Amino acid sequence: MARIVMKFGGTSVADLDRIRSVAARAKRAREAGDQVAVVVSAMAGVTNQLAGWCQALSPLHDAREYDAVVATGEQVTAGLLAIALQEMGVESRSWQGWQVPIRTDGQHGKARIEAIEAAELIRRMELGHIPVVTGFQGIGPDHRVTTLGRGGSDTSAVALAAAVRADRCDIYTDVDGVYTTDPRIVAKARKLAKIAYEEMLELASAGAKVLHTRSVALAMKQRVRVQVLSSFEDLPGTLVVDEDEIVEKQLVSGIAYSRDEAKITIRRVPDRPGIAAAIFGPLAAKGVNVDMIVQNLGADGTTDLTFTVGKADLPRAQAALAEVCPGIGCKEISTDDEVAKISVVGVGMRSHAGVANTMFRTLAEKGINIQVISTSEIKVSVLIAAEYTELAVRALHTAYGLDAA
Amino acid sequence: MARIVMKFGGTSVADLDRIRSVAARAKRAREAGDQVAVVVSAMAGVTNQLAGWCQALSPLHDAREYDAVVATGEQVTAGLLAIALQEMGVESRSWQGWQVPIRTDGQHGKARIEAIEAAELIRRMELGHIPVVTGFQGIGPDHRVTTLGRGGSDTSAVALAAAVRADRCDIYTDVDGVYTTDPRIVAKARKLAKIAYEEMLELASAGAKVLHTRSVALAMKQRVRVQVLSSFEDLPGTLVVDEDEIVEKQLVSGIAYSRDEAKITIRRVPDRPGIAAAIFGPLAAKGVNVDMIVQNLGADGTTDLTFTVGKADLPRAQAALAEVCPGIGCKEISTDDEVAKISVVGVGMRSHAGVANTMFRTLAEKGINIQVISTSEIKVSVLIAAEYTELAVRALHTAYGLDAA
Repeated sequence: MARIVMKFGGTSVADLDRIRSVAARAKRAREAGDQVAVVVSAMAGVTNQLAGWCQALSPLHDAREYDAVVATGEQVTAGLLAIALQEMGVESRSWQGWQVPIRTDGQHGKARIEAIEAAELIRRMELGHIPVVTGFQGIGPDHRVTTLGRGGSDTSAVALAAAVRADRCDIYTDVDGVYTTDPRIVAKARKLAKIAYEEMLELASAGAKVLHTRSVALAMKQRVRVQVLSSFEDLPGTLVVDEDEIVEKQLVSGIAYSRDEAKITIRRVPDRPGIAAAIFGPLAAKGVNVDMIVQNLGADGTTDLTFTVGKADLPRAQAALAEVCPGIGCKEISTDDEVAKISVVGVGMRSHAGVANTMFRTLAEKGINIQVISTSEIKVSVLIAAEYTELAVRALHTAYGLDAA
Repeated sequence: MARIVMKFGGTSVADLDRIRSVAARAKRAREAGDQVAVVVSAMAGVTNQLAGWCQALSPLHDAREYDAVVATGEQVTAGLLAIALQEMGVESRSWQGWQVPIRTDGQHGKARIEAIEAAELIRRMELGHIPVVTGFQGIGPDHRVTTLGRGGSDTSAVALAAAVRADRCDIYTDVDGVYTTDPRIVAKARKLAKIAYEEMLELASAGAKVLHTRSVALAMKQRVRVQVLSSFEDLPGTLVVDEDEIVEKQLVSGIAYSRDEAKITIRRVPDRPGIAAAIFGPLAAKGVNVDMIVQNLGADGTTDLTFTVGKADLPRAQAALAEVCPGIGCKEISTDDEVAKISVVGVGMRSHAGVANTMFRTLAEKGINIQVISTSEIKVSVLIAAEYTELAVRALHTAYGLDAA
């Protein structure tokens, strides 16, 4: 017997038939002897519609009202799922964020969970009931509904799993697990049985879209075992667990790519102390996240600075730099949004040298120029021209021995 | 300066443009010096869609989950209206039933309001803010969302008006007031400037659909002045007020009709004590409301019993009677759902005789047979064949001098 929190995303509860399937799946788990609670998203498309209405009425709308409006999406699904479970003879009730309560801070639209009062949910799970909890939302210190922002429902599920001391948090989605890379690009991509939190975290922030960074970080912090699996099949998915649980460590577990980056190069900046702060300070002030940074010292006492930002942030970054540049005497700014970031990730890197070198050699053999390099303890990322994305990912997948037999 | 609660129904908030119009109207009232709070329904069609989903998942669904699901309709509208008001520079926030709180009893799906804690709303109205409150819902003793059932949002508005001690409760709808009769039937129908609570109550229960009986009864009990007016025009509507406020009392204020009735006749029931209880008891037990009742004594020690029930209740009534009949020895049951109830209503009847007689004579002159008669202090109702409905209403409208010049 295990205690499990199951989370179903928008496509898994997109209509009444799918809601019935979700109910049947939760019921089967309970009948197999598990204690079950379910976290649900809004039906596919609903959150976007509600958010679009808020936006149409006022582009700079009050985040507190936005939260009150969009949080209704999950409330509808939770109630409907409880009804579907009851219809199958299962004791169930829905819990809205404020009812549990799931307490968050007061940052409306991107609130963070602070505490979940789970005693009543645990009591009911122990009785064999299946509580259904709304994802993506909570109640703030102002006694108003808050939403958690992007990746919110996954985060709700992981936080709830921690609060009820669940053995596992199953995230049901429209893919059946975490792959060595995107199967749409590499036909020989393999589904991983297990992956370490830190690898998943690096893959998620490097562009793999299966789980949001935030929920992985929370799972790692709270040591919640997370399983990613398909709501449309009945197969085991991928377990995201502590590194110690993975006996057979791969040198490289996965290859991620992201085309959501843009490169900015500032040439011939005077090379003096404080110049980096003078450039990156104003970018941070405008909420622009800078990812990879490279600085090259030139011969004439100037330096070239290259860095990447999210593609959507490019206009804001350019505006900020246009203000800054005259003051610091930089000569030339160029931008390129036809770039891609390719990352190889694996905890095995910690103990093995040569991972980065394999990457550089493989790309060189295919004639792919590396524009920027950045590394972490378990990741190597390079920026290349976007047109080489698929070629690079396939070549690396083969080079690291990840291809399925 | 007045303190006003404005209530807007589903067609008045059916899309974003109409929500903007509602915001503009509320803002104008505030700028004219009034203190304003707004009560909203769900966008037209939304409640039916949500209720339909619950029904499709489980015909006998849990009323508590139904409430959690359908109450989201008003929550969306309230948040959107608050955003629209803010966009126009008005301080506003939305209040869901549980936030106010609007405390109800625990009858999910048809809860009754028990108390509204309005101090904070009053404080904000006095500051010139416009609070937007969800209609149709509250929070029950079980700390769960309740809905009020049919006519719920009008009832919310009247109860809120009483709680904030408003000078008036304006019910905006898709008609522009209360008419002497249905203008679709009688072109010469006139809009009434004022009508007494009791008249409105009788008209509502006699089939006039402009206000729900329940909200009128509450307004009468709490002495809340209610105005019915159009959200699509800028004209005064009809004031529903205490009889004492109406100086020039009409003999008859209005004529209502209902085609939602069915007639049941039980012939040759043994005429002995307790026979009515034996028949109507089982009907009440099945939740069938009986309206008009007539009993005629026959020559042979038997009696004929005729009564009306709601057309939708007819199958249940027939089933109940089929069980009862053998035991009490009744011979013949016939039903007719091609009937209409025509009612003339007016507080002037209290002091004037002859109102009923005018009705009977007028119908006789048109060759319309009266099947059942029932009267109250300020109402006379008759049951006739449905095909004469329009003819009867027009003739009576003229006979009582109600035709517009």
